[in-house]
Amino acid sequence: MDPLSDAIKKTGADAFVIYASSRDADMRYLNRFTTSDPFVFLKKPGEAGVIIVSQMETGRASRESTANVMTRGQAGLSEILRTERDPWRATAKMIAGQVGKKVLVPPSFPVALAEALGEFCTIIVDKGTVSAMRAKKDRSEMSKLKRIQRITEGAMGVAVSLIRNSTVKKGILYSGGSPLTSEKIRFAMHSLLLEHECSVIDTIVSCGEDTAIPHMKGSGPLRANEPIVIDIFPCDEKTGYYADMTRTVSKGKPSKDILDMYSTLREAKERGFSHLRAGVSGASVYQDVVDFFKDHGYESDTRGFVHNLGHGVGLQVHELPTVGPSGTGSLEPGNVITIEPGLYYPGIGGVRLEDIGAVTKTGFDKFTKFPEELVV
Amino acid sequence: MDPLSDAIKKTGADAFVIYASSRDADMRYLNRFTTSDPFVFLKKPGEAGVIIVSQMETGRASRESTANVMTRGQAGLSEILRTERDPWRATAKMIAGQVGKKVLVPPSFPVALAEALGEFCTIIVDKGTVSAMRAKKDRSEMSKLKRIQRITEGAMGVAVSLIRNSTVKKGILYSGGSPLTSEKIRFAMHSLLLEHECSVIDTIVSCGEDTAIPHMKGSGPLRANEPIVIDIFPCDEKTGYYADMTRTVSKGKPSKDILDMYSTLREAKERGFSHLRAGVSGASVYQDVVDFFKDHGYESDTRGFVHNLGHGVGLQVHELPTVGPSGTGSLEPGNVITIEPGLYYPGIGGVRLEDIGAVTKTGFDKFTKFPEELVV
Repeated sequence: MDPLSDAIKKTGADAFVIYASSRDADMRYLNRFTTSDPFVFLKKPGEAGVIIVSQMETGRASRESTANVMTRGQAGLSEILRTERDPWRATAKMIAGQVGKKVLVPPSFPVALAEALGEFCTIIVDKGTVSAMRAKKDRSEMSKLKRIQRITEGAMGVAVSLIRNSTVKKGILYSGGSPLTSEKIRFAMHSLLLEHECSVIDTIVSCGEDTAIPHMKGSGPLRANEPIVIDIFPCDEKTGYYADMTRTVSKGKPSKDILDMYSTLREAKERGFSHLRAGVSGASVYQDVVDFFKDHGYESDTRGFVHNLGHGVGLQVHELPTVGPSGTGSLEPGNVITIEPGLYYPGIGGVRLEDIGAVTKTGFDKFTKFPEELVV
Repeated sequence: MDPLSDAIKKTGADAFVIYASSRDADMRYLNRFTTSDPFVFLKKPGEAGVIIVSQMETGRASRESTANVMTRGQAGLSEILRTERDPWRATAKMIAGQVGKKVLVPPSFPVALAEALGEFCTIIVDKGTVSAMRAKKDRSEMSKLKRIQRITEGAMGVAVSLIRNSTVKKGILYSGGSPLTSEKIRFAMHSLLLEHECSVIDTIVSCGEDTAIPHMKGSGPLRANEPIVIDIFPCDEKTGYYADMTRTVSKGKPSKDILDMYSTLREAKERGFSHLRAGVSGASVYQDVVDFFKDHGYESDTRGFVHNLGHGVGLQVHELPTVGPSGTGSLEPGNVITIEPGLYYPGIGGVRLEDIGAVTKTGFDKFTKFPEELVV
């Protein structure tokens, strides 16, 4: 039986209920129907589950969803709405009509709906069964993740080529007669992603000082001999799966500090990978990289290596497992994670590299094939 | 005092707490900091509020956010994590350290966090104060909404031009020597939106039979003399605000049924607009259009006019107020809403038109300027 059915039975619940749009990764994972408006999915142990959608969505829902489809009318909502004006209470009544006396809900279940539903049933809050299921990818998910990673590397290639082929005048990069900006590179990358029906936001193309702030998006003309951090995490709209990758490049040689940081960073990343296999904890891999940085004179505090080493990627760009201090559980075969060490020093700049791949029984199957080259 | 401060005081709470990413419209509205990971915002009556973010986000958070910024470390999280392994309980402890004994939370607050926080404080679930605040746009929001509507009309112009300038061979539209498909039109529209840093998903370009299903995305070659429904709702990434518009066109004359449906639809839309002003209810405007359709022989059931007449648009593409049966409250000046009647008949096809604008004291300020033309 699937882990969610197990969790329902173990808690003595009759059914699992989730209320969210398909932007909620758990929801998309559980039934694959895509819509921007919230809807109900409920599942009894051993069954495929049922989604409750508006009449006008039934055709599309039947085609897309792995669950059975019921209309809100069939679930009694029109009837309920004659006497019940509060939308949360109305939805709660509709759900109560479909389940028994005890329901399991995900951690993110809206508290207003839990409160309203609590008048009809006992609510048990699940500890994250669906997030845990999502963390272990099956073969079909792996191939979706590899697909979006390939497309993403195409976009990274566009960015690096633009920088490589630029000319330098008074320290500024030029391309096609005008300054090469963060915005131009983002646009070129996003255009390619668009052709592949991927959505993408918050792509980082930062330069110089800005690279010392890990999530600074970057703007304006790029400069020679300074680190340029490019971090991109698109979503394949057809499947909902994300990729995530980062490269740091420099047009011409950067400062000695940056060269040293980059070379230590590459080693740190390889060191991270060398430890990865089923059974080790994300926390231990993280700690080893922290120790390695320390041995090379780089702290892991408010400067230096300021973030986690990596994270799961799937229907969310950040999901389980965590490769950081809180990732104390064992990694499992099928976990798809990033390894992304970074070093950040205000006044000097920042460098980051990020690859993605799958944990296996004996090691790590790296999806990222893109070369690493600081000076281009 | 702002309505949220009023709500905090009225319920006897010490503070309002929300935990979400900035993809949550309430969160973005309340402090404007953008991040894809969830964080805490808390506010005491009369204060600007404070966001609690990771150390590495503080620089960006201080620049973007309208709230004060505190790191998780300053809020005691590192200390808490030494003994508390459960992430929900750890976040709850961190929040409890910043607020009094009674907290107000939004309806969408995660039930797991509410449960954990309930060990330290009394939780009161708000009825939707922030959604109600969001429904009434101020001047700055209006100009952001008008801006994204202008860009969206540019994209719609691209789509209509492609159809208008296509040639017909054996009933199929051709452009540049190859069949003109739903995908090509979507790509052309999205390219233009990308140049303006807008994100866009699920754009509908459906043709013929598919148009009878309101949310069918559409695919493959477009055909002449059949309705083509184009529905697009991009988000301006810089501001977070959405636009929403729909046009129905046909390359060459469609069937008499479609011609009749379209002409009734146009009238229905104008009729909808003619009733709009502060004080009337969305439900009454909807009902009037239902009655109008009925007088013209079109039902509003499982066929015909199968959805609401309109909805609010802002930081979500669908938000309050509702122009449909459940919209029983009075419309207010500053509500930005769509009016989007549609008629759907399997075997015949569907037509839909959608404009957007702002409710005023005495009428409606329509933002949409794009022409309506069925046959192109």
